[in-house]
Amino acid sequence: MKRRLFLAGTVAGIGLPALISPARAQADALPSWNDGPAKQSILDFLRRTTTGGSRDWIPVPERIATFDNDGTLWTEQPMYVQVMFAMDRVRALAGRNPQWRTQEPFKAVLTNDRDALATMGEKGLLEIMAATHAGLTTEEFRQAVLDWLATARHPRFKRPYTDLVYQPMLELLALLRANQFKTYIVSGGGIEFMRPWTERVYGIPPEQVVGSSGVTRYELRANRPVLLKEPKVQFIDDGPGKAEGINQYIGRRPVLAFGNSDGDQQMLEWTAAGSGARFMGLVHHTDAMREYAYDRQSPVGRLDTAWNEAVRRKWTVVDMKNDWKVIYPFEMR
Amino acid sequence: MKRRLFLAGTVAGIGLPALISPARAQADALPSWNDGPAKQSILDFLRRTTTGGSRDWIPVPERIATFDNDGTLWTEQPMYVQVMFAMDRVRALAGRNPQWRTQEPFKAVLTNDRDALATMGEKGLLEIMAATHAGLTTEEFRQAVLDWLATARHPRFKRPYTDLVYQPMLELLALLRANQFKTYIVSGGGIEFMRPWTERVYGIPPEQVVGSSGVTRYELRANRPVLLKEPKVQFIDDGPGKAEGINQYIGRRPVLAFGNSDGDQQMLEWTAAGSGARFMGLVHHTDAMREYAYDRQSPVGRLDTAWNEAVRRKWTVVDMKNDWKVIYPFEMR
Repeated sequence: MKRRLFLAGTVAGIGLPALISPARAQADALPSWNDGPAKQSILDFLRRTTTGGSRDWIPVPERIATFDNDGTLWTEQPMYVQVMFAMDRVRALAGRNPQWRTQEPFKAVLTNDRDALATMGEKGLLEIMAATHAGLTTEEFRQAVLDWLATARHPRFKRPYTDLVYQPMLELLALLRANQFKTYIVSGGGIEFMRPWTERVYGIPPEQVVGSSGVTRYELRANRPVLLKEPKVQFIDDGPGKAEGINQYIGRRPVLAFGNSDGDQQMLEWTAAGSGARFMGLVHHTDAMREYAYDRQSPVGRLDTAWNEAVRRKWTVVDMKNDWKVIYPFEMR
Repeated sequence: MKRRLFLAGTVAGIGLPALISPARAQADALPSWNDGPAKQSILDFLRRTTTGGSRDWIPVPERIATFDNDGTLWTEQPMYVQVMFAMDRVRALAGRNPQWRTQEPFKAVLTNDRDALATMGEKGLLEIMAATHAGLTTEEFRQAVLDWLATARHPRFKRPYTDLVYQPMLELLALLRANQFKTYIVSGGGIEFMRPWTERVYGIPPEQVVGSSGVTRYELRANRPVLLKEPKVQFIDDGPGKAEGINQYIGRRPVLAFGNSDGDQQMLEWTAAGSGARFMGLVHHTDAMREYAYDRQSPVGRLDTAWNEAVRRKWTVVDMKNDWKVIYPFEMR
């Protein structure tokens, strides 16, 4: 997805290459973004922080950029992808667990009871995750994720979930890396659910993925060590947990953070509270036609208090419908 | 500490630069190591894993190298440095905590009761850490660590603790990085105790430090977010915890791991269990004159079961006295 910067010749009206500002030159690195305040704020931040001699220049080791995943880098509607995965695992494992037919929240999944599913809340979800993820070794789980992603299809788009990543954000990730930023995912989703595919899909290696996690237990099996996933939550990387997770995993404060919901608010606040130039961005889902439109009341990806703070503090809000020419990479083929 | 590789001209008897094997060429990158099986096993591993076309070649993203800290990269005797720090904090905070004068394990510290100190065990230690580290914000703690390191002196060497790092290991870290390995610390010590100085001292940035951690709590203070350290253990990165921590933080299995005690055994086993070329190393403290000599019965840095496994599985054991020309960087000045 990395695009080479166009230099002299593409910037009309400027005769001398030396006068071309990096921001103008980099404009073509975000071809799926419409010109507008969101795109300009990104390019402006990059120009200020990476131009030698600039007052806002940021040393390379400090160039840490963190991105939420669900709803920021890929589609999170109508349900988080990991919930889809967990529900498919409930169905696949139902034969071995006959008690699930009468036991909530499993019964709701097996009977496709939409009302019960909608109201099971985080507790029900954690119960499903624990029951369907635990007991596997980390290697078995990794394979289960890859196998599922290879065949599962999004209910509306009828495509693999990894096709439903946002082209404009892929361009932003590549542009940041071209400017020596280290790009991280900081997601409420499970760290072991993301790591098997983030390098291929986003160019983000496993060691730059922060997420929620369960406890694992070291065990020797026939003299070969395995890490067994236990049905116990270790860390929830959401809301305040995102600031805690960033501190815990990265140990540096980001200079750029992008989210899309209230779960990202503290990550953005934590980023904003550092000294020097900072960029805080929110993806606002305004495009019911090409993707989904939702915000303040959405059960998935609610954007309410973070929206208020973004408006008040003049953080960048990306209006999907107006700011993005293209949503998904497959639209470009 | 990085040293340039000497090429043609330094390898006697070989006329054609094209015939020089990387292992021979790299020999001079470890000038503080005596020739011997330990040095040769390192150079042999590097040659096999980084030479294009070699059967054991490792792709760059998989070149993950993990190092224990206490006793592997710096001196851990007569007590872990972080314990020295915590004890100094008990002394500094005693005025504000008069109850400590009669309350163990604090009393033992304040009265310098060696017997009580020696027997307080992990529980006492965790109690001291919790009481002296908690209540600070992560930024205040970072500053407290830096302030202490600037003035504290090792009881025997009368030098800052950060002077007591092993020159041969600094050379190894630099050589690995020159060969595109990512170098990590994976330590039982506190992650927030190490991160403030590992970049300066070892060239290892905060995001490549894995360690034990306490719970932090996100809090707004006058609208500014802080992370407050709570007196509650989050994760103990020792023994089996090292394999778990590697999985949790890095999400890839190392191809090289170096430790010095039983607390590193599972990290070495986890590393060894991967497919393809692997390097497992132990530093054996055999030099009472220049550093310390200890192993099977040592209360700090006990090397007993890991020693047996290393011998049985032919892992590399570094004999400090015989394998290292120089222990500390200051010996070279």
